[in-house]
Amino acid sequence: MVKIPDSHPRKKSLISRNKIVSGSSKGLLAESALIAHGRGEAFDYLLGEKTSEIAKLAIREVSARLLAAKKPVISVNGNTVVLAGEAFIRIAAALGCPIEVNLYYTTRERVSGLISLLEEQRKEVLSEDSAMGTDWQKKILAVDFLGLETDFRIGGLEGPRANCCKAGIGDADSVLVPLEDGDRCEALVKNLKEVLVIDLNPLSRTARMATVTVVDEVSRASKEIFKQVSMNNYSPSKWDNISALNESLKIISNSFIGDSNLQNSD
Amino acid sequence: MVKIPDSHPRKKSLISRNKIVSGSSKGLLAESALIAHGRGEAFDYLLGEKTSEIAKLAIREVSARLLAAKKPVISVNGNTVVLAGEAFIRIAAALGCPIEVNLYYTTRERVSGLISLLEEQRKEVLSEDSAMGTDWQKKILAVDFLGLETDFRIGGLEGPRANCCKAGIGDADSVLVPLEDGDRCEALVKNLKEVLVIDLNPLSRTARMATVTVVDEVSRASKEIFKQVSMNNYSPSKWDNISALNESLKIISNSFIGDSNLQNSD
Repeated sequence: MVKIPDSHPRKKSLISRNKIVSGSSKGLLAESALIAHGRGEAFDYLLGEKTSEIAKLAIREVSARLLAAKKPVISVNGNTVVLAGEAFIRIAAALGCPIEVNLYYTTRERVSGLISLLEEQRKEVLSEDSAMGTDWQKKILAVDFLGLETDFRIGGLEGPRANCCKAGIGDADSVLVPLEDGDRCEALVKNLKEVLVIDLNPLSRTARMATVTVVDEVSRASKEIFKQVSMNNYSPSKWDNISALNESLKIISNSFIGDSNLQNSD
Repeated sequence: MVKIPDSHPRKKSLISRNKIVSGSSKGLLAESALIAHGRGEAFDYLLGEKTSEIAKLAIREVSARLLAAKKPVISVNGNTVVLAGEAFIRIAAALGCPIEVNLYYTTRERVSGLISLLEEQRKEVLSEDSAMGTDWQKKILAVDFLGLETDFRIGGLEGPRANCCKAGIGDADSVLVPLEDGDRCEALVKNLKEVLVIDLNPLSRTARMATVTVVDEVSRASKEIFKQVSMNNYSPSKWDNISALNESLKIISNSFIGDSNLQNSD
């Protein structure tokens, strides 16, 4: 990969791309992960590569619901860990909940590799947050990384992708699942779980099936969720997810209107 | 990769994805090629995964201009060869022009691998078109695959990506460049070449810089260009490329309007 100059208007996007390429070359990601990332890049580009007002509201709602849940869990795939593992460790520490590595195309080697990466990221978080006191350090150290030994199945799903951990997704009443696939999102909802997703495509089945969808890039959204979870200022509302998705659709649609939007996308 | 059932509504898109994943695992593509493909998938999804009316007009225009050119050339990168090499061999045979492998992140190994793949694809084309007579077979066999030995530079471009072949891009008056990067497209235009591109993102710099832009998926567009080149029914027109791009933008923008568009994108 070519070094990205500081002046590049899309530097954050290119840094994320490099993280995905590097994670892929280390064997941490499924072969389709880079393609999925590229699809996300296109949608983020159309969203102006920033967190919209409706996404901020969805982030508040997700944070309030995670705080109100009896047994929340964060379900992560390879792209999520590579792009935003540190932020999700902080969210899990604030909530006192586990992180479960749960992959669509799963292999024991990949799950194990991602848990090792999470352990490295935990060290990074401990170092970066060293000024925040011993209580916070203890909370970070207490986050369980699940997924290697599965002992539960998500009802209504065929094959190995139904496997999960009872202490994680199995017993949870609320699941935060960034970058989830549509089938599994549907199955989780049918299993009476509250499903909170982060998905850049407001038209995707996952986005439609979820209880609350944050239409935003995962590394931006996860930092904001951590802030909201830490502040604990809001209670869950009646959330109309389809209305919220339509707001995101309008933003994307408007990005195409007028010659002034004919900008460089390279 | 999981086998794709015939009933899958997005089967063609998934076959293309598999071709890219397979080409990547054979070392034929740069590390960013899968991400670029994913970005294209998202735009094609928004275009309804079909060739629009304005794309059909652009395809006619591109075909007419290639037929009218004194020395046309087809410049291909890895994704283009993997996704649509056969169609471009047929177009080159019909025009009597060379195909030049010209890569952004170039290595001798990758250029050589792509030329070998083109040779395999040529055999496939010869076999599929065996009923079309010896003249056609001779034309297919006569297509030169250039790019391994460069002896010319595109003016106004730094570094190895400026290298090209005099017998190909160097001397050409008209260049068909599917999936090109913006800088190089700009340099080709400044070198007074007619630049005909295929790009799914109507907002990209390449799309804007080109003489004629076909906003369509490369495997669909290349088959249509071959049909048009074979029929030879049209002459070049005064083409307003920005107006044409705005037509494509409207199609994408409209794809977001109304709940009826909230469909499965998985």
